[in-house]
Amino acid sequence: MTQTTSALPDSAAIAPSDYVIIGGTGDLALRKIFPALFYRFLDNQVTDAFRFVAAARKMGTRDEFIAKLKPFCHEAIASVADGDAQFERFVALISLQALDVASGNGGAELKSFIDERANESRPVIFYMAISPALFGASCQLLKQVGLVTPMARLVVEKPLGHDATSAREINDELRDVFDEDNIYRIDHYLGKETVQNLMALRFANTIFESQWNNTFIDHIQITVAESVGLEGRASYYDNYGALRDMCQNHLMQLVCLVAMEPPAQFKANQVRDEKLRVLRALRPVEPANLSDSLVIGQYGAGELNGDDVASYQDELGQSSKVDTFAALKLYIENWRWAGVPFYIRTGKRMAVRASEIVVTFKKRSHDIFANGSASETDFPNQLVIRLQPHEGLRLQLISKQPGPGGMRLFPSGLNLSFDDTFKTRLPDAYERLLMDVARGNQTLFMRHDEVMAAWHFMDPIIAAAAEVAPEIYPAGSFGPEAQDALFATGEMGWQAPILE
Amino acid sequence: MTQTTSALPDSAAIAPSDYVIIGGTGDLALRKIFPALFYRFLDNQVTDAFRFVAAARKMGTRDEFIAKLKPFCHEAIASVADGDAQFERFVALISLQALDVASGNGGAELKSFIDERANESRPVIFYMAISPALFGASCQLLKQVGLVTPMARLVVEKPLGHDATSAREINDELRDVFDEDNIYRIDHYLGKETVQNLMALRFANTIFESQWNNTFIDHIQITVAESVGLEGRASYYDNYGALRDMCQNHLMQLVCLVAMEPPAQFKANQVRDEKLRVLRALRPVEPANLSDSLVIGQYGAGELNGDDVASYQDELGQSSKVDTFAALKLYIENWRWAGVPFYIRTGKRMAVRASEIVVTFKKRSHDIFANGSASETDFPNQLVIRLQPHEGLRLQLISKQPGPGGMRLFPSGLNLSFDDTFKTRLPDAYERLLMDVARGNQTLFMRHDEVMAAWHFMDPIIAAAAEVAPEIYPAGSFGPEAQDALFATGEMGWQAPILE
Repeated sequence: MTQTTSALPDSAAIAPSDYVIIGGTGDLALRKIFPALFYRFLDNQVTDAFRFVAAARKMGTRDEFIAKLKPFCHEAIASVADGDAQFERFVALISLQALDVASGNGGAELKSFIDERANESRPVIFYMAISPALFGASCQLLKQVGLVTPMARLVVEKPLGHDATSAREINDELRDVFDEDNIYRIDHYLGKETVQNLMALRFANTIFESQWNNTFIDHIQITVAESVGLEGRASYYDNYGALRDMCQNHLMQLVCLVAMEPPAQFKANQVRDEKLRVLRALRPVEPANLSDSLVIGQYGAGELNGDDVASYQDELGQSSKVDTFAALKLYIENWRWAGVPFYIRTGKRMAVRASEIVVTFKKRSHDIFANGSASETDFPNQLVIRLQPHEGLRLQLISKQPGPGGMRLFPSGLNLSFDDTFKTRLPDAYERLLMDVARGNQTLFMRHDEVMAAWHFMDPIIAAAAEVAPEIYPAGSFGPEAQDALFATGEMGWQAPILE
Repeated sequence: MTQTTSALPDSAAIAPSDYVIIGGTGDLALRKIFPALFYRFLDNQVTDAFRFVAAARKMGTRDEFIAKLKPFCHEAIASVADGDAQFERFVALISLQALDVASGNGGAELKSFIDERANESRPVIFYMAISPALFGASCQLLKQVGLVTPMARLVVEKPLGHDATSAREINDELRDVFDEDNIYRIDHYLGKETVQNLMALRFANTIFESQWNNTFIDHIQITVAESVGLEGRASYYDNYGALRDMCQNHLMQLVCLVAMEPPAQFKANQVRDEKLRVLRALRPVEPANLSDSLVIGQYGAGELNGDDVASYQDELGQSSKVDTFAALKLYIENWRWAGVPFYIRTGKRMAVRASEIVVTFKKRSHDIFANGSASETDFPNQLVIRLQPHEGLRLQLISKQPGPGGMRLFPSGLNLSFDDTFKTRLPDAYERLLMDVARGNQTLFMRHDEVMAAWHFMDPIIAAAAEVAPEIYPAGSFGPEAQDALFATGEMGWQAPILE
């Protein structure tokens, strides 16, 4: 694989913001948010003119905070020659602020701090790195102390409710205080390089977009396979399950990006309008045909990478009927997609960690080479969009088998791997999304109506699934056997992820 | 670039033939034919059951013959551990036969030799490695001694005439004696792996064939650039020139393969019928618009790979108006290609040796990403089919530039390189074509009516070109500047070959 251009572009510098992390000493802030900002600082996209605030109810000393943060920045520090000095420069941008959202203590001080630069009209970003139960009170406090100005932006992450009703309640609390145009709901899948490249691929390449419809495409598969189990999130996960935790958000978002009509312009609300139209065009899954459309599973004991792995219920410590695997067959009822099934699946403790979108084109209508070896030559063209572990593309073709043996065909792939091509480190999804907030670009964030449309589609499915016992699948497999029955007899079936 | 399958397939063994090389001690036989057969022997496609005859007017001793042949097989000998022993086994299959086609001396002996195996009904191949002036007499001799049986096949190479009239005369001499179904006219371009793969690519991949028409394709370019000059062929070449030597055959054949309709079956006469339909649909180049359609050039002195290179006329030793470069703009007047220009060019002493077919798709009709950097994002999709020096494919796409800099687009390529992918040596075009003769497969050989149609199209162009002085271009360039004017203002222009 060679590449015409292999230099990573300069990261466009971004006008300075104030970034307030509420819950700034918690796990999310220390593990993810500050290290991501530090990487952007090392890349000169975040400049010394930025200001960061770690706000928390219990705030220790500055030294304690830095000592807690530094280990999570170790990899970034090691990535440059003067890493320690750079880290010192970065943490000098972080102010600590005790803030109790219940009592309001600390709100006035935060306001004074922000006001120091108010004359610059710089964006002020409030990142809610706290439990959703505290979102409402936090927003109200920001409003009371006068921090909800036109320059204020709010960042939240899932879970935003566990069904349409609770999602609406939480979102109403946010929307009571912030305009929708200033709310950034993070789905880190949307920050992945390849997810964004999917839009470039579709809308900048006539050879793909001209075939991106039911005349040429046979079906689409999306697999998001995790190898991890509960990871200490037992109490959360057992109330959610795969349908709520993954399908309603990540997988629905991927379906939208694959299926949406081209927006007239690549602008946030135009893109989100098109995604919404996909969600609203989904054929509701009727209870009568639930078993043709849905398979749920739960991992039992098994083996993964040579290690014995406990069952979900053993890991949880109690019996449970929650789904750790879900597979769905969807139809989008519009002119472009009528008749093209979308198969989506996700699961924990699967054989590998791998996420892929596979677009399978229709087989050719006539085989001029037909001479016996049908199994090899009958393979359809596929475009595989790989999200993890290696972001890249593969275009699966049929070629002539080289050599003097006459015209024998075989499947071969044209690959573009981003890590192979761009030898330098690519920013992760989090970094990209944090910079998009600072830039004021909502394209990769979910709008309220999208979230609600996804819940309205999923709620009846989730309710029906609760009546069904999940099929136990061995940890280290690709999920329950029943998932194969979503495909009709003679169809291609699930494609195992590309592992190389 | 990785590949799902990387093993070279077993070469399918071929039923044994008798292969008679008339002119068996000449340059073509020693340099090309016998070494190619030896490679096929090393690969077990040619077995010990084959018999070869080197027939020539003046035949020395067997030792002399082997001593002359061995240096040309040196590379093949060195490619295996027991090369010398294999060479001994191979030459043991070669019989020498003095044969004077004028007097007929030796004909009876050749007949007796062939008759030894006549009861096996094995193919008997007569390869005319002699001057075309002797084709007629040779065919008559074979007929007189009774060697033109239903099992007999005739192989000839260019030049088969220098215009339609002389081509018909030579071909009539062949067709007087042999059925068209037993005549194999070699165009070694058609034996190239990628040329054959072009058919697999088009007819086994719906993603390409569904767009292979004037709705989706903007134009097609074919460049066959040679870096060599006269190579001692002065007296021949100065009577031919680029239009006759390259365009009428190789380039026309490539145009046919790119442009032809899908045959119902991949069979020799069906494929050749479709190629013929392309030739017959070519819009004649009228004298009135000759200058819009044709540019000829002749190389002057220049520099190539750091060496000074003499001009064509200095190399020739006399003044000449012959074309060593020709570029043509063609239109195929049928439903598929109306309005799509085909630009073809070939030249000697060009900057590199490189042959490529570039299919340029239309630009997208609307740019949702339009925001200034038009020059980068405006690049159309291209499929580049590389014939030499490295056989392979490149699909030129637009991707998102990786990184956190927002949605910036850049051109990137998906590559499939045959030499990278298949680490083992691939048989060259000659070997493949020689085996196709033994196999009785005429698909990659030109039929009489194709040859004549190509001449009928080219003759008026060649006649008109003779009235024009070629533009002198420096050796080591890509040809005369005038070739750029074949493209309208604002169009893409000639694409430099991919050199990596």
